[in-house]
Amino acid sequence: MPLSGHDNEASTARLLIACPDARGIVAAVARFISDHGGNLLDSDQHTDRDHGEFFMRVEFDLSQCDLSPASFAEAWSPLAARHGMSWRVRFNGRPMRIAILVGTLPHCLQDLLWRYQAGELQVEIPAIISNHDALRPVAGHAGVPFHHFPIVRGDKLAQESIIREVLARERVDLVVLARYMQVLSPEFLRGWENRIINIHHSFLPAFAGGDPYRQAYDRGVKLIGATSHYVTEVLDDGPIIAQGVEQVSHRCSIDDLKRMGRDLERTVLARAVRMHVHDRILVSKNKTVVFD
Amino acid sequence: MPLSGHDNEASTARLLIACPDARGIVAAVARFISDHGGNLLDSDQHTDRDHGEFFMRVEFDLSQCDLSPASFAEAWSPLAARHGMSWRVRFNGRPMRIAILVGTLPHCLQDLLWRYQAGELQVEIPAIISNHDALRPVAGHAGVPFHHFPIVRGDKLAQESIIREVLARERVDLVVLARYMQVLSPEFLRGWENRIINIHHSFLPAFAGGDPYRQAYDRGVKLIGATSHYVTEVLDDGPIIAQGVEQVSHRCSIDDLKRMGRDLERTVLARAVRMHVHDRILVSKNKTVVFD
Amino acid sequence: MPLSGHDNEASTARLLIACPDARGIVAAVARFISDHGGNLLDSDQHTDRDHGEFFMRVEFDLSQCDLSPASFAEAWSPLAARHGMSWRVRFNGRPMRIAILVGTLPHCLQDLLWRYQAGELQVEIPAIISNHDALRPVAGHAGVPFHHFPIVRGDKLAQESIIREVLARERVDLVVLARYMQVLSPEFLRGWENRIINIHHSFLPAFAGGDPYRQAYDRGVKLIGATSHYVTEVLDDGPIIAQGVEQVSHRCSIDDLKRMGRDLERTVLARAVRMHVHDRILVSKNKTVVFD
Amino acid sequence: MPLSGHDNEASTARLLIACPDARGIVAAVARFISDHGGNLLDSDQHTDRDHGEFFMRVEFDLSQCDLSPASFAEAWSPLAARHGMSWRVRFNGRPMRIAILVGTLPHCLQDLLWRYQAGELQVEIPAIISNHDALRPVAGHAGVPFHHFPIVRGDKLAQESIIREVLARERVDLVVLARYMQVLSPEFLRGWENRIINIHHSFLPAFAGGDPYRQAYDRGVKLIGATSHYVTEVLDDGPIIAQGVEQVSHRCSIDDLKRMGRDLERTVLARAVRMHVHDRILVSKNKTVVFD
Repeated sequence: MPLSGHDNEASTARLLIACPDARGIVAAVARFISDHGGNLLDSDQHTDRDHGEFFMRVEFDLSQCDLSPASFAEAWSPLAARHGMSWRVRFNGRPMRIAILVGTLPHCLQDLLWRYQAGELQVEIPAIISNHDALRPVAGHAGVPFHHFPIVRGDKLAQESIIREVLARERVDLVVLARYMQVLSPEFLRGWENRIINIHHSFLPAFAGGDPYRQAYDRGVKLIGATSHYVTEVLDDGPIIAQGVEQVSHRCSIDDLKRMGRDLERTVLARAVRMHVHDRILVSKNKTVVFD
Repeated sequence: MPLSGHDNEASTARLLIACPDARGIVAAVARFISDHGGNLLDSDQHTDRDHGEFFMRVEFDLSQCDLSPASFAEAWSPLAARHGMSWRVRFNGRPMRIAILVGTLPHCLQDLLWRYQAGELQVEIPAIISNHDALRPVAGHAGVPFHHFPIVRGDKLAQESIIREVLARERVDLVVLARYMQVLSPEFLRGWENRIINIHHSFLPAFAGGDPYRQAYDRGVKLIGATSHYVTEVLDDGPIIAQGVEQVSHRCSIDDLKRMGRDLERTVLARAVRMHVHDRILVSKNKTVVFD
Repeated sequence: MPLSGHDNEASTARLLIACPDARGIVAAVARFISDHGGNLLDSDQHTDRDHGEFFMRVEFDLSQCDLSPASFAEAWSPLAARHGMSWRVRFNGRPMRIAILVGTLPHCLQDLLWRYQAGELQVEIPAIISNHDALRPVAGHAGVPFHHFPIVRGDKLAQESIIREVLARERVDLVVLARYMQVLSPEFLRGWENRIINIHHSFLPAFAGGDPYRQAYDRGVKLIGATSHYVTEVLDDGPIIAQGVEQVSHRCSIDDLKRMGRDLERTVLARAVRMHVHDRILVSKNKTVVFD
Repeated sequence: MPLSGHDNEASTARLLIACPDARGIVAAVARFISDHGGNLLDSDQHTDRDHGEFFMRVEFDLSQCDLSPASFAEAWSPLAARHGMSWRVRFNGRPMRIAILVGTLPHCLQDLLWRYQAGELQVEIPAIISNHDALRPVAGHAGVPFHHFPIVRGDKLAQESIIREVLARERVDLVVLARYMQVLSPEFLRGWENRIINIHHSFLPAFAGGDPYRQAYDRGVKLIGATSHYVTEVLDDGPIIAQGVEQVSHRCSIDDLKRMGRDLERTVLARAVRMHVHDRILVSKNKTVVFD
């Protein structure tokens, strides 16, 4: 299986850290890894001076390292406690597991499956889920199980509950809304903070809500955009991960905007998923730090 | 004097037309010019099918043409009347006359003066006007008269009235707000529809109103923008002429956004002024048709 | 079937003209169409003053027009002769017929098929042809006939001759090289001037020839590109139709460049095919005029 | 004086390191700074796995640090020796000193002076030097000494020798060629490796050499570009720092390309100078690592 970039998935780990800023954190983290025989492959760090917050991402080689998924937490916790860190680590022998939720529009789903098949995304996709049956053949071509869970008599909570069962059973790490047209309930979101990625077909915060291409057309903008973000309880307001834009003109009909928008949406969504899957995103105060 | 592009200002005319869509307008216009000895150099046309509106811009050579600024209206009016056209023509021996209104930030003013001096903008600039005295030296370096009209005791209407006198006396065709920080009154705007161009330092309609870079920073967007538009009575809501964006990241402070924004603002404003000066913009239903 | 933009394929015609520049051509063309009951929907025109050449594209409504594919040439030829025009017309009831030649890389093929299925490209695709069998399943998913014509014992001319038979039998209008890795012989190209579109995976004329991503990596450029062009006898030297670029950095490995390049290649190739299919391209002196 | 970004120039230092890749370098460097009371503000690192090379940039706070420009080398040398590092440090109380070499085109010079006056570039500009006298007024407006050193009877070496005297006398750190149209001799370049930045008005390696806009026009490209690079003995072949592009069409005359190119050139040159001045560039094997 082709791997993108220079990652050797089988023998590296990635550690993400957020904590109050203080002297010596980089040195302490680097020494910890070094003392355990890990070789630091990539290190990125950011300090938000307005809020006194420190963010760090390190990727380290495990070939001569005595740390394992089982032992890491215990070894790491003293340092983490000293600095009040929130952190997570991923030993990337195990690919992230993604569920894709879709409606009836195929382009974002097709694009993700395509990158998956091309080896661009180092993930497993155990489930594609929809309230419509329209995209079953797309899933079938890629050999991914497709679940059709219609919303019966408007009972969305019941449908969501079935979806959550699948997510749990399949040990899903990340949910991708690939033009899924339903607003998820606060109940659904609970426990999935910063683990559900949506694509909105506008340059947020402009044109939040419904039919953004119509809004853009009516306003006469000269650029259209797409925005991928983590889903929060406030519609189209979650932390922004990636955005893209394309020039348009008075010659573009709404159909043209939609056509051009499809290219933007799939590109921007793929970029966001890629960043998440590579453990490159930290979230604080409704904003993302994306180590790209 | 250096001329941009392939325009020979001394011997061409530009005609802008908007009217209800109908069969044969292009042929009729092209024949009219041809019959009068004009040679059609450039013709652009757009039909808004949603609203049944027709827009056209033609540029024609005058060297063997019997039309003149004095005679054009009479010759043209039968055709214009037949199609219910609103139109305007400019025989471009006479450059457009521009007044620039500024506050204390120099970058947009400097950029316009620079392009003016480099021959990029085929205009005359008879006046730079401000409610502050800060940019007088910038005007002085370019040899352009600078008028400092402070707003005394909050009486903005009085100050605006002085400005309008200058605009009238100097026979100004276009007003450019190059980071002028005052909202113009409806009284001021009267008679200046689609002849006042503003630069707003955000990707409108996102972040309208005050301090858009702070708004963008707080929202955590991944692209910042600038928008040039004609000024209408509704703040930041006029027809959009041009927009630009630039990628930003979590590493950018508000000062960084402002620095990057300066480059966007001056580029986007210059593009809008250029389009207007070349008679490339038509406005309908609060949207622009920009023949670029 | 969804149509892009505002074209109603069944009842319009598109006329492309190139001739020496002269007074009154636009008027004459517009009048011709008007006199025959056609309604001019879109007209674009360009004059190359360096070489005294005139280019025009008109699209006209046929609903009350007395011109037909059978009668057009006779009606049109006096005007065409007077101005020494080279021209072509397409009554677009009949979609253009495309053959796609591929090697083993699927992304450009998949992208074209996807847009085809989404109704973005108003074409028929009667054949996908390759010297490898690798992409047969991709063709199969889209229901398009796939022809595997291997190059046997290095006899490329023999293989090309088989391909040409398919092109003739299927009445193919346009050949798209979607990462087809063989150089076509001058014999093959004969009769296909400006009807074979290639995608080169660099920003031509930089990095012509083989392995452009390796070349780009070695040179340390900060932008990579892709170029679609018509194929001529000189490798990677034909008239350029569309180009795109993407920012890269020292962090990008060659594999990253290839991954990012795939997105560029498919986007740029699709744009070129789209422009050709909409009859928006004229070629003169190894350069294109693209009326977009 | 306004400072860009979050740098507090008076109390920080920046250290750039290149050495063979090895285990534990990041930890060792971070510990060194920490042990000396420095607070690591920003750390960026890159490993070129193809060549086994390690690159690092650290910026650290000096307020409680016992290191000084005088003492740094001695304290640092054991660690540097152990890893075979090439390195440099800058205690940024002292701004970098820049000389700008120009010909007759003002736009790049004006742009640099403008950013300098706006506080975007934290530098001193002790000299503007030219073989023409044309831009003396531009220098004068900014209050920067202007030296006119004509090339007399073709003796370029003599003229270069005078320039080098000025550079030495003014303790210049960086030379910026802002559309200086002379090729510098190998003698001149000696001792100035990676300290002379040029702007080439094309998307290198395309259109190296003379009159690139003419070359671009003749080739019919759809994008034009600009490239800033360090100057080496091979013309237009030095390590690339930054590149930008802009879309063009068949409608653009060569004059249009030049006009659009001016905007590209000044933007790209300013970006390169900015990166250099912030000590963000390392060079290896004719390629740059730009920590942006």
